[in-house]
Amino acid sequence: MRYVSFTRPNGKASFGRLDGQTVFDLGGAYASLKAAIAADALASLADGEAFALDAIKLLPVIPDPEKILCVGLNYASHVAETGREQKEHPAIFTRYADSLIAEGEAMVRPPESVRFDYEGEVAIVIGKKGRRIAPENAWDHIAGYAPFNDGSIRDWQRHNIQFTPGKTWPGTGGFGPALVTPDEIEDLGVQRVQTRLNGELVQDQPISDMIWDIPTIIAYCSTFTDLNPGDVIATGTPGGVGDKRKPALYMKAGDVVEISVGVIGTLTNPVIDEI
Amino acid sequence: MRYVSFTRPNGKASFGRLDGQTVFDLGGAYASLKAAIAADALASLADGEAFALDAIKLLPVIPDPEKILCVGLNYASHVAETGREQKEHPAIFTRYADSLIAEGEAMVRPPESVRFDYEGEVAIVIGKKGRRIAPENAWDHIAGYAPFNDGSIRDWQRHNIQFTPGKTWPGTGGFGPALVTPDEIEDLGVQRVQTRLNGELVQDQPISDMIWDIPTIIAYCSTFTDLNPGDVIATGTPGGVGDKRKPALYMKAGDVVEISVGVIGTLTNPVIDEI
Repeated sequence: MRYVSFTRPNGKASFGRLDGQTVFDLGGAYASLKAAIAADALASLADGEAFALDAIKLLPVIPDPEKILCVGLNYASHVAETGREQKEHPAIFTRYADSLIAEGEAMVRPPESVRFDYEGEVAIVIGKKGRRIAPENAWDHIAGYAPFNDGSIRDWQRHNIQFTPGKTWPGTGGFGPALVTPDEIEDLGVQRVQTRLNGELVQDQPISDMIWDIPTIIAYCSTFTDLNPGDVIATGTPGGVGDKRKPALYMKAGDVVEISVGVIGTLTNPVIDEI
Repeated sequence: MRYVSFTRPNGKASFGRLDGQTVFDLGGAYASLKAAIAADALASLADGEAFALDAIKLLPVIPDPEKILCVGLNYASHVAETGREQKEHPAIFTRYADSLIAEGEAMVRPPESVRFDYEGEVAIVIGKKGRRIAPENAWDHIAGYAPFNDGSIRDWQRHNIQFTPGKTWPGTGGFGPALVTPDEIEDLGVQRVQTRLNGELVQDQPISDMIWDIPTIIAYCSTFTDLNPGDVIATGTPGGVGDKRKPALYMKAGDVVEISVGVIGTLTNPVIDEI
Protein backbone atom coordinates (compact mmCIF):
# COMPACT_ATOMS: atom_id res chain seq x y z
CA MET A 1 0.00 0.00 0.00
CA ARG A 2 0.91 3.64 -0.43
CA TYR A 3 -0.18 6.20 2.12
CA VAL A 4 -0.04 9.98 2.01
CA SER A 5 -0.60 12.83 4.41
CA PHE A 6 -2.56 15.66 2.83
CA THR A 7 -4.76 18.69 3.28
CA ARG A 8 -8.36 18.19 2.18
CA PRO A 9 -9.99 20.77 -0.11
CA ASN A 10 -11.74 22.06 3.05
CA GLY A 11 -8.34 22.90 4.54
CA LYS A 12 -8.27 20.15 7.17
CA ALA A 13 -5.22 17.91 7.47
CA SER A 14 -5.79 14.19 6.97
CA PHE A 15 -4.15 11.10 5.56
CA GLY A 16 -5.20 8.50 3.06
CA ARG A 17 -4.44 5.62 0.76
CA LEU A 18 -2.97 6.51 -2.60
CA ASP A 19 -4.19 4.44 -5.54
CA GLY A 20 -2.88 5.76 -8.85
CA GLN A 21 -4.12 9.33 -9.10
CA THR A 22 -6.75 8.93 -6.37
CA VAL A 23 -6.45 9.41 -2.61
CA PHE A 24 -9.00 7.63 -0.41
CA ASP A 25 -9.37 9.54 2.84
CA LEU A 26 -8.61 7.44 5.94
CA GLY A 27 -8.78 10.26 8.48
CA GLY A 28 -11.34 10.33 11.26
CA ALA A 29 -10.61 7.77 13.93
CA TYR A 30 -6.95 8.81 13.93
CA ALA A 31 -5.71 12.36 13.70
CA SER A 32 -2.70 11.62 11.54
CA LEU A 33 -0.79 8.96 9.65
CA LYS A 34 1.58 8.80 12.60
CA ALA A 35 -1.28 8.14 15.02
CA ALA A 36 -2.72 5.40 12.79
CA ILE A 37 0.71 3.75 12.53
CA ALA A 38 1.15 3.96 16.30
CA ALA A 39 -2.21 2.23 16.78
CA ASP A 40 -1.22 -0.43 14.25
CA ALA A 41 -4.53 0.43 12.59
CA LEU A 42 -3.43 1.44 9.12
CA ALA A 43 -4.22 -1.81 7.30
CA SER A 44 -7.69 -2.06 8.80
CA LEU A 45 -8.98 1.43 7.97
CA ALA A 46 -11.80 1.58 5.44
CA ASP A 47 -11.52 3.88 2.43
CA GLY A 48 -13.41 7.13 2.91
CA GLU A 49 -14.05 9.92 0.45
CA ALA A 50 -12.07 9.76 -2.81
CA PHE A 51 -10.11 12.81 -3.90
CA ALA A 52 -8.25 13.32 -7.15
CA LEU A 53 -4.57 13.68 -6.33
CA ASP A 54 -4.47 17.06 -8.04
CA ALA A 55 -7.40 18.35 -5.97
CA ILE A 56 -5.60 18.03 -2.66
CA LYS A 57 -2.36 19.37 -1.21
CA LEU A 58 0.15 16.75 -0.18
CA LEU A 59 1.97 17.11 3.13
CA PRO A 60 5.32 15.56 4.06
CA VAL A 61 4.80 11.78 4.38
CA ILE A 62 4.84 12.14 8.16
CA PRO A 63 4.39 15.86 8.86
CA ASP A 64 5.05 15.55 12.60
CA PRO A 65 7.77 13.00 13.39
CA GLU A 66 9.11 13.26 16.90
CA LYS A 67 12.59 12.25 15.74
CA ILE A 68 14.29 12.52 12.39
CA LEU A 69 17.66 10.80 12.50
CA CYS A 70 19.96 11.18 9.53
CA VAL A 71 22.80 8.85 8.62
CA GLY A 72 25.86 10.53 7.17
CA LEU A 73 28.60 8.92 5.15
CA ASN A 74 26.71 5.69 4.39
CA TYR A 75 27.89 5.09 0.80
CA ALA A 76 31.58 4.52 0.10
CA SER A 77 31.37 6.82 -2.94
CA HIS A 78 30.23 9.68 -0.72
CA VAL A 79 32.78 8.97 2.00
CA ALA A 80 35.47 9.08 -0.69
CA GLU A 81 34.34 12.36 -2.21
CA THR A 82 34.32 14.04 1.22
CA GLY A 83 37.92 12.93 1.77
CA ARG A 84 36.97 11.39 5.12
CA GLU A 85 38.01 8.03 6.44
CA GLN A 86 35.42 5.33 6.88
CA LYS A 87 34.68 4.65 10.53
CA GLU A 88 33.45 1.55 12.28
CA HIS A 89 30.09 3.13 13.16
CA PRO A 90 27.71 5.40 11.27
CA ALA A 91 27.61 9.19 11.62
CA ILE A 92 24.20 10.24 12.97
CA PHE A 93 22.78 13.73 13.13
CA THR A 94 19.26 15.13 13.32
CA ARG A 95 16.78 17.37 11.57
CA TYR A 96 13.61 19.00 12.93
CA ALA A 97 10.11 18.32 11.62
CA ASP A 98 9.57 21.98 10.75
CA SER A 99 12.20 21.65 8.03
CA LEU A 100 10.16 19.10 6.05
CA ILE A 101 8.36 19.76 2.78
CA ALA A 102 6.04 17.62 0.68
CA GLU A 103 6.11 16.37 -2.88
CA GLY A 104 5.75 19.40 -5.14
CA GLU A 105 6.55 22.00 -2.49
CA ALA A 106 9.46 24.34 -2.99
CA MET A 107 12.96 23.65 -1.70
CA VAL A 108 13.96 27.04 -0.29
CA ARG A 109 17.42 28.56 -0.53
CA PRO A 110 17.85 31.15 2.22
CA PRO A 111 19.66 34.41 1.51
CA GLU A 112 22.41 33.31 3.94
CA SER A 113 23.63 30.60 1.54
CA VAL A 114 25.20 30.22 -1.88
CA ARG A 115 25.78 26.47 -1.36
CA PHE A 116 22.33 24.85 -1.31
CA ASP A 117 22.82 21.16 -2.08
CA TYR A 118 20.68 18.06 -2.69
CA GLU A 119 21.12 14.67 -1.01
CA GLY A 120 18.96 11.90 -2.46
CA GLU A 121 18.12 9.23 0.11
CA VAL A 122 15.62 6.59 1.07
CA ALA A 123 13.89 7.25 4.39
CA ILE A 124 12.61 4.60 6.77
CA VAL A 125 9.43 5.32 8.74
CA ILE A 126 9.30 3.47 12.06
CA GLY A 127 6.14 1.44 12.64
CA LYS A 128 6.67 -0.04 16.09
CA LYS A 129 8.33 1.36 19.19
CA GLY A 130 11.61 -0.18 20.23
CA ARG A 131 14.85 0.21 22.11
CA ARG A 132 17.94 -1.87 21.46
CA ILE A 133 16.24 -3.54 18.54
CA ALA A 134 18.23 -6.57 17.37
CA PRO A 135 19.16 -6.42 13.69
CA GLU A 136 17.20 -9.62 13.03
CA ASN A 137 14.05 -7.97 14.40
CA ALA A 138 14.58 -4.60 12.72
CA TRP A 139 12.31 -5.31 9.75
CA ASP A 140 9.36 -5.72 12.14
CA HIS A 141 9.80 -2.10 13.23
CA ILE A 142 9.47 -0.59 9.75
CA ALA A 143 6.15 0.90 8.59
CA GLY A 144 7.53 1.71 5.15
CA TYR A 145 9.81 3.82 3.02
CA ALA A 146 9.79 7.08 1.10
CA PRO A 147 12.19 9.15 -0.99
CA PHE A 148 13.97 11.87 1.00
CA ASN A 149 15.99 14.90 -0.01
CA ASP A 150 18.29 15.88 2.86
CA GLY A 151 18.73 19.39 1.46
CA SER A 152 21.87 20.91 2.91
CA ILE A 153 23.08 24.46 3.43
CA ARG A 154 26.73 23.54 2.99
CA ASP A 155 28.18 26.88 4.11
CA TRP A 156 26.49 26.52 7.50
CA GLN A 157 27.07 22.76 7.71
CA ARG A 158 30.81 23.52 7.57
CA HIS A 159 30.80 26.41 10.06
CA ASN A 160 32.06 24.05 12.71
CA ILE A 161 32.38 20.30 13.25
CA GLN A 162 28.68 19.52 13.80
CA PHE A 163 26.28 19.42 10.83
CA THR A 164 23.08 20.69 12.52
CA PRO A 165 23.34 24.35 11.42
CA GLY A 166 23.30 23.23 7.77
CA LYS A 167 20.75 20.47 8.05
CA THR A 168 17.49 21.77 9.41
CA TRP A 169 16.62 25.00 7.64
CA PRO A 170 12.91 25.44 6.90
CA GLY A 171 12.00 24.24 3.42
CA THR A 172 15.01 21.95 2.95
CA GLY A 173 13.84 18.43 3.83
CA GLY A 174 11.93 16.89 0.93
CA PHE A 175 9.90 13.90 2.09
CA GLY A 176 7.43 12.28 -0.29
CA PRO A 177 5.35 11.57 -2.12
CA ALA A 178 4.07 8.54 -0.19
CA LEU A 179 4.83 5.97 2.48
CA VAL A 180 5.33 2.69 0.64
CA THR A 181 4.81 -0.43 2.75
CA PRO A 182 7.40 -3.20 2.62
CA ASP A 183 5.05 -5.66 0.86
CA GLU A 184 5.09 -3.37 -2.21
CA ILE A 185 8.84 -3.87 -2.65
CA GLU A 186 9.95 -7.23 -3.95
CA ASP A 187 13.69 -6.57 -3.62
CA LEU A 188 14.64 -3.53 -1.56
CA GLY A 189 18.38 -3.77 -2.25
CA VAL A 190 18.12 -3.31 -6.00
CA GLN A 191 16.08 -0.10 -5.77
CA ARG A 192 18.33 2.73 -6.92
CA VAL A 193 18.61 6.07 -5.15
CA GLN A 194 18.73 8.48 -8.07
CA THR A 195 18.90 12.24 -7.95
CA ARG A 196 18.24 14.39 -10.98
CA LEU A 197 18.84 18.11 -11.08
CA ASN A 198 17.02 19.67 -14.04
CA GLY A 199 16.84 16.19 -15.56
CA GLU A 200 20.55 15.44 -15.27
CA LEU A 201 21.35 12.28 -13.29
CA VAL A 202 23.75 13.32 -10.50
CA GLN A 203 23.43 10.47 -7.96
CA ASP A 204 22.67 6.83 -8.76
CA GLN A 205 23.33 3.85 -6.52
CA PRO A 206 21.33 0.89 -5.29
CA ILE A 207 20.25 0.67 -1.65
CA SER A 208 22.44 -2.45 -1.39
CA ASP A 209 25.50 -0.19 -1.63
CA MET A 210 24.92 1.20 1.85
CA ILE A 211 27.87 0.68 4.21
CA TRP A 212 25.51 0.13 7.19
CA ASP A 213 22.42 -1.67 6.02
CA ILE A 214 18.93 -0.93 7.26
CA PRO A 215 18.85 -3.49 10.11
CA THR A 216 22.24 -2.24 11.33
CA ILE A 217 21.07 1.37 11.27
CA ILE A 218 17.91 0.58 13.23
CA ALA A 219 19.84 -1.49 15.76
CA TYR A 220 22.43 1.25 16.17
CA CYS A 221 20.05 4.20 16.53
CA SER A 222 17.69 2.32 18.83
CA THR A 223 20.59 1.63 21.18
CA PHE A 224 20.99 5.29 22.13
CA THR A 225 17.38 6.46 21.78
CA ASP A 226 13.89 4.99 21.68
CA LEU A 227 12.46 4.72 18.20
CA ASN A 228 8.75 5.51 18.10
CA PRO A 229 6.04 5.09 15.48
CA GLY A 230 6.36 7.82 12.86
CA ASP A 231 10.01 8.47 13.56
CA VAL A 232 12.09 8.86 10.42
CA ILE A 233 15.58 7.66 9.60
CA ALA A 234 17.11 9.16 6.46
CA THR A 235 19.63 6.51 5.49
CA GLY A 236 22.36 8.54 3.83
CA THR A 237 23.24 9.77 0.39
CA PRO A 238 25.34 8.24 -2.42
CA GLY A 239 28.29 10.00 -4.01
CA GLY A 240 27.63 12.83 -6.41
CA VAL A 241 26.56 15.65 -4.12
CA GLY A 242 26.85 19.07 -5.71
CA ASP A 243 29.28 20.43 -3.17
CA LYS A 244 31.96 17.87 -4.10
CA ARG A 245 31.60 18.09 -7.89
CA LYS A 246 34.15 19.93 -9.97
CA PRO A 247 32.87 22.47 -10.73
CA ALA A 248 30.45 22.55 -7.78
CA LEU A 249 26.78 22.24 -8.67
CA TYR A 250 24.38 24.01 -6.32
CA MET A 251 20.60 24.31 -6.41
CA LYS A 252 19.24 27.70 -7.42
CA ALA A 253 15.89 29.32 -8.06
CA GLY A 254 14.16 27.82 -11.08
CA ASP A 255 15.79 24.40 -10.73
CA VAL A 256 13.83 21.19 -10.35
CA VAL A 257 15.24 18.42 -8.17
CA GLU A 258 13.97 14.84 -8.27
CA ILE A 259 14.77 11.95 -5.94
CA SER A 260 13.74 8.54 -7.31
CA VAL A 261 14.02 5.33 -5.33
CA GLY A 262 12.79 2.68 -7.79
CA VAL A 263 9.32 1.38 -6.93
CA ILE A 264 9.30 3.58 -3.82
CA GLY A 265 8.57 6.49 -6.10
CA THR A 266 9.82 9.89 -7.14
CA LEU A 267 9.93 13.09 -5.10
CA THR A 268 9.93 16.23 -7.25
CA ASN A 269 10.50 19.73 -5.90
CA PRO A 270 11.12 23.08 -7.53
CA VAL A 271 13.80 25.30 -6.01
CA ILE A 272 13.11 28.89 -5.02
CA ASP A 273 14.98 31.67 -3.30
CA GLU A 274 13.54 32.77 0.01
CA ILE A 275 12.03 36.19 -0.49
CA MET B 1 10.48 34.10 40.00
CA ARG B 2 11.36 30.41 40.01
CA TYR B 3 9.10 27.93 38.28
CA VAL B 4 9.15 24.14 38.34
CA SER B 5 7.43 21.33 36.50
CA PHE B 6 6.33 18.56 38.84
CA THR B 7 4.05 15.62 39.48
CA ARG B 8 1.40 16.23 42.12
CA PRO B 9 0.92 13.70 44.92
CA ASN B 10 -2.14 12.50 42.94
CA GLY B 11 0.14 11.56 40.03
CA LYS B 12 -0.91 14.33 37.67
CA ALA B 13 1.73 16.47 35.96
CA SER B 14 1.59 20.19 36.64
CA PHE B 15 3.81 23.21 37.11
CA GLY B 16 4.14 25.82 39.78
CA ARG B 17 5.98 28.64 41.45
CA LEU B 18 8.81 27.67 43.76
CA ASP B 19 9.16 29.76 46.90
CA GLY B 20 11.80 28.37 49.25
CA GLN B 21 10.67 24.84 50.07
CA THR B 22 7.10 25.37 48.88
CA VAL B 23 5.61 24.91 45.41
CA PHE B 24 2.41 26.80 44.61
CA ASP B 25 0.49 24.95 41.93
CA LEU B 26 -0.16 27.04 38.81
CA GLY B 27 -1.59 24.25 36.64
CA GLY B 28 -5.15 24.31 35.39
CA ALA B 29 -5.65 26.86 32.64
CA TYR B 30 -2.44 25.69 30.97
CA ALA B 31 -1.35 22.09 30.62
CA SER B 32 2.34 22.69 31.14
CA LEU B 33 4.99 25.26 31.91
CA LYS B 34 5.74 25.37 28.18
CA ALA B 35 2.10 26.15 27.38
CA ALA B 36 1.97 28.92 29.98
CA ILE B 37 5.18 30.43 28.62
CA ALA B 38 3.83 30.24 25.06
CA ALA B 39 0.69 32.09 26.18
CA ASP B 40 2.84 34.71 27.96
CA ALA B 41 0.64 33.95 30.96
CA LEU B 42 3.18 32.86 33.53
CA ALA B 43 3.44 36.12 35.48
CA SER B 44 -0.32 36.52 35.75
CA LEU B 45 -1.21 33.07 37.11
CA ALA B 46 -2.54 33.00 40.67
CA ASP B 47 -0.99 30.68 43.22
CA GLY B 48 -3.01 27.50 43.70
CA GLU B 49 -2.56 24.71 46.23
CA ALA B 50 0.70 24.77 48.18
CA PHE B 51 2.85 21.63 48.27
CA ALA B 52 5.96 21.02 50.30
CA LEU B 53 8.85 20.53 47.87
CA ASP B 54 9.60 17.14 49.36
CA ALA B 55 6.00 15.98 48.91
CA ILE B 56 6.06 16.26 45.12
CA LYS B 57 8.21 14.81 42.36
CA LEU B 58 10.06 17.35 40.26
CA LEU B 59 10.13 16.96 36.49
CA PRO B 60 12.73 18.38 34.11
CA VAL B 61 12.28 22.18 34.03
CA ILE B 62 10.54 21.87 30.65
CA PRO B 63 9.68 18.18 30.27
CA ASP B 64 8.55 18.49 26.65
CA PRO B 65 10.68 20.94 24.68
CA GLU B 66 10.24 20.66 20.94
CA LYS B 67 13.90 21.53 20.34
CA ILE B 68 16.96 21.17 22.53
CA LEU B 69 19.95 22.76 20.86
CA CYS B 70 23.35 22.25 22.44
CA VAL B 71 26.37 24.47 21.90
CA GLY B 72 29.68 22.65 21.75
CA LEU B 73 33.11 24.16 22.31
CA ASN B 74 31.90 27.45 23.82
CA TYR B 75 34.62 27.95 26.46
CA ALA B 76 38.24 28.39 25.37
CA SER B 77 39.38 26.07 28.17
CA HIS B 78 37.22 23.26 26.76
CA VAL B 79 38.26 23.92 23.16
CA ALA B 80 41.88 23.69 24.32
CA GLU B 81 41.44 20.43 26.23
CA THR B 82 39.78 18.78 23.20
CA GLY B 83 42.74 19.77 21.02
CA ARG B 84 40.42 21.35 18.47
CA GLU B 85 40.88 24.69 16.79
CA GLN B 86 38.48 27.49 17.57
CA LYS B 87 36.18 28.23 14.67
CA GLU B 88 34.41 31.40 13.66
CA HIS B 89 30.95 29.95 14.46
CA PRO B 90 29.62 27.75 17.26
CA ALA B 91 29.23 23.97 17.02
CA ILE B 92 25.55 23.07 17.41
CA PHE B 93 24.09 19.62 17.95
CA THR B 94 20.83 18.37 19.42
CA ARG B 95 19.35 16.20 22.15
CA TYR B 96 15.85 14.71 22.45
CA ALA B 97 13.37 15.52 25.21
CA ASP B 98 13.16 11.88 26.27
CA SER B 99 16.77 12.06 27.45
CA LEU B 100 15.95 14.69 30.12
CA ILE B 101 15.85 14.08 33.86
CA ALA B 102 14.84 16.28 36.78
CA GLU B 103 16.60 17.48 39.89
CA GLY B 104 17.21 14.44 42.08
CA GLU B 105 16.59 11.84 39.39
CA ALA B 106 19.32 9.40 38.49
CA MET B 107 21.84 9.96 35.73
CA VAL B 108 21.96 6.56 34.05
CA ARG B 109 25.07 4.90 32.69
CA PRO B 110 24.07 2.32 30.08
CA PRO B 111 25.90 -1.01 29.90
CA GLU B 112 27.25 0.00 26.47
CA SER B 113 29.54 2.63 28.01
CA VAL B 114 32.52 2.95 30.30
CA ARG B 115 32.95 6.65 29.54
CA PHE B 116 29.94 8.42 31.08
CA ASP B 117 30.85 12.07 31.50
CA TYR B 118 29.36 15.24 33.01
CA GLU B 119 29.11 18.62 31.28
CA GLY B 120 27.96 21.45 33.52
CA GLU B 121 26.14 24.20 31.62
CA VAL B 122 23.57 26.93 31.91
CA ALA B 123 20.49 26.36 29.75
CA ILE B 124 18.35 29.08 28.21
CA VAL B 125 14.60 28.51 27.94
CA ILE B 126 13.02 30.39 25.05
CA GLY B 127 10.02 32.54 25.95
CA LYS B 128 8.97 34.02 22.65
CA LYS B 129 8.95 32.59 19.14
CA GLY B 130 11.43 34.01 16.69
CA ARG B 131 13.42 33.53 13.54
CA ARG B 132 16.54 35.49 12.66
CA ILE B 133 16.45 37.19 16.03
CA ALA B 134 18.87 40.13 16.10
CA PRO B 135 21.39 39.93 18.96
CA GLU B 136 20.07 43.18 20.41
CA ASN B 137 16.58 41.67 20.65
CA ALA B 138 17.69 38.27 21.95
CA TRP B 139 17.08 39.04 25.63
CA ASP B 140 13.38 39.57 24.86
CA HIS B 141 13.14 35.95 23.73
CA ILE B 142 14.39 34.41 26.98
CA ALA B 143 11.92 33.05 29.55
CA GLY B 144 14.71 32.15 31.96
CA TYR B 145 17.63 29.94 32.84
CA ALA B 146 18.38 26.66 34.58
CA PRO B 147 21.40 24.48 35.33
CA PHE B 148 21.94 21.72 32.78
CA ASN B 149 24.09 18.60 32.76
CA ASP B 150 24.76 17.56 29.17
CA GLY B 151 25.64 14.01 30.23
CA SER B 152 27.72 12.41 27.50
CA ILE B 153 28.41 8.82 26.52
CA ARG B 154 31.88 9.61 25.21
CA ASP B 155 32.53 6.22 23.60
CA TRP B 156 29.47 6.67 21.36
CA GLN B 157 30.04 10.40 20.88
CA ARG B 158 33.37 9.52 19.26
CA HIS B 159 32.11 6.64 17.10
CA ASN B 160 32.09 8.98 14.15
CA ILE B 161 32.27 12.72 13.47
CA GLN B 162 28.77 13.63 14.70
CA PHE B 163 28.03 13.79 18.44
CA THR B 164 24.37 12.67 18.43
CA PRO B 165 24.96 8.99 19.32
CA GLY B 166 26.64 10.06 22.57
CA LYS B 167 24.37 12.95 23.46
CA THR B 168 20.79 11.78 23.77
CA TRP B 169 20.72 8.56 25.79
CA PRO B 170 17.77 8.26 28.17
CA GLY B 171 18.61 9.47 31.65
CA THR B 172 21.59 11.62 30.66
CA GLY B 173 20.27 15.19 30.37
CA GLY B 174 19.97 16.77 33.81
CA PHE B 175 17.75 19.85 33.70
CA GLY B 176 16.72 21.54 36.94
CA PRO B 177 15.75 22.31 39.51
CA ALA B 178 13.85 25.41 38.37
CA LEU B 179 13.39 27.98 35.65
CA VAL B 180 14.80 31.21 36.99
CA THR B 181 13.49 34.37 35.35
CA PRO B 182 15.95 37.05 34.24
CA ASP B 183 14.79 39.56 36.86
CA GLU B 184 16.15 37.24 39.58
CA ILE B 185 19.68 37.60 38.24
CA GLU B 186 21.38 40.89 38.85
CA ASP B 187 24.51 40.12 36.84
CA LEU B 188 24.31 37.07 34.60
CA GLY B 189 27.93 37.15 33.45
CA VAL B 190 29.44 36.67 36.92
CA GLN B 191 27.41 33.55 37.70
CA ARG B 192 29.81 30.62 37.71
CA VAL B 193 29.12 27.29 36.03
CA GLN B 194 30.49 24.85 38.59
CA THR B 195 30.44 21.08 38.44
CA ARG B 196 31.17 18.93 41.45
CA LEU B 197 31.60 15.18 41.29
CA ASN B 198 31.30 13.68 44.77
CA GLY B 199 31.98 17.13 46.15
CA GLU B 200 35.16 17.74 44.17
CA LEU B 201 35.06 20.89 42.03
CA VAL B 202 35.86 19.80 38.45
CA GLN B 203 34.52 22.68 36.33
CA ASP B 204 34.36 26.33 37.37
CA GLN B 205 34.01 29.31 35.05
CA PRO B 206 31.78 32.36 34.84
CA ILE B 207 29.16 32.66 32.11
CA SER B 208 31.09 35.69 30.85
CA ASP B 209 33.83 33.32 29.67
CA MET B 210 31.65 31.97 26.85
CA ILE B 211 33.20 32.39 23.41
CA TRP B 212 29.79 33.07 21.85
CA ASP B 213 27.64 34.98 24.30
CA ILE B 214 23.94 34.38 24.81
CA PRO B 215 22.65 36.98 22.29
CA THR B 216 25.04 35.61 19.67
CA ILE B 217 23.90 32.03 20.29
CA ILE B 218 20.22 32.97 20.02
CA ALA B 219 20.84 34.99 16.86
CA TYR B 220 22.85 32.14 15.31
CA CYS B 221 20.45 29.29 16.12
CA SER B 222 17.37 31.27 15.15
CA THR B 223 18.88 31.89 11.72
CA PHE B 224 18.66 28.22 10.72
CA THR B 225 15.57 27.18 12.70
CA ASP B 226 12.58 28.77 14.41
CA LEU B 227 12.93 29.07 18.15
CA ASN B 228 9.66 28.43 19.96
CA PRO B 229 8.50 28.92 23.55
CA GLY B 230 9.88 26.16 25.74
CA ASP B 231 12.79 25.37 23.43
CA VAL B 232 16.05 24.88 25.26
CA ILE B 233 19.57 25.94 24.37
CA ALA B 234 22.32 24.36 26.45
CA THR B 235 25.09 26.91 26.12
CA GLY B 236 28.19 24.75 26.34
CA THR B 237 30.53 23.47 29.01
CA PRO B 238 33.73 24.87 30.50
CA GLY B 239 37.02 22.99 30.55
CA GLY B 240 37.44 20.17 33.03
CA VAL B 241 35.31 17.43 31.52
CA GLY B 242 36.17 13.98 32.83
CA ASP B 243 37.12 12.54 29.46
CA LYS B 244 40.00 14.98 29.03
CA ARG B 245 41.42 14.75 32.56
CA LYS B 246 44.58 12.81 33.24
CA PRO B 247 43.70 10.31 34.53
CA ALA B 248 40.20 10.34 33.04
CA LEU B 249 37.36 10.78 35.51
CA TYR B 250 34.09 9.12 34.56
CA MET B 251 30.78 8.96 36.40
CA LYS B 252 29.91 5.62 37.93
CA ALA B 253 27.17 4.12 40.07
CA GLY B 254 27.08 5.66 43.54
CA ASP B 255 28.51 9.02 42.44
CA VAL B 256 26.70 12.30 42.98
CA VAL B 257 27.04 15.03 40.37
CA GLU B 258 26.10 18.66 41.01
CA ILE B 259 25.86 21.55 38.58
CA SER B 260 25.71 24.98 40.21
CA VAL B 261 25.15 28.19 38.30
CA GLY B 262 25.30 30.86 41.01
CA VAL B 263 21.89 32.29 41.86
CA ILE B 264 20.34 30.13 39.12
CA GLY B 265 20.64 27.23 41.52
CA THR B 266 22.11 23.78 41.89
CA LEU B 267 21.14 20.60 40.06
CA THR B 268 22.01 17.44 42.00
CA ASN B 269 21.76 13.94 40.57
CA PRO B 270 22.93 10.55 41.75
CA VAL B 271 24.52 8.25 39.18
CA ILE B 272 23.32 4.69 38.65
CA ASP B 273 24.07 1.86 36.32
CA GLU B 274 21.23 0.85 34.05
CA ILE B 275 19.97 -2.50 35.25
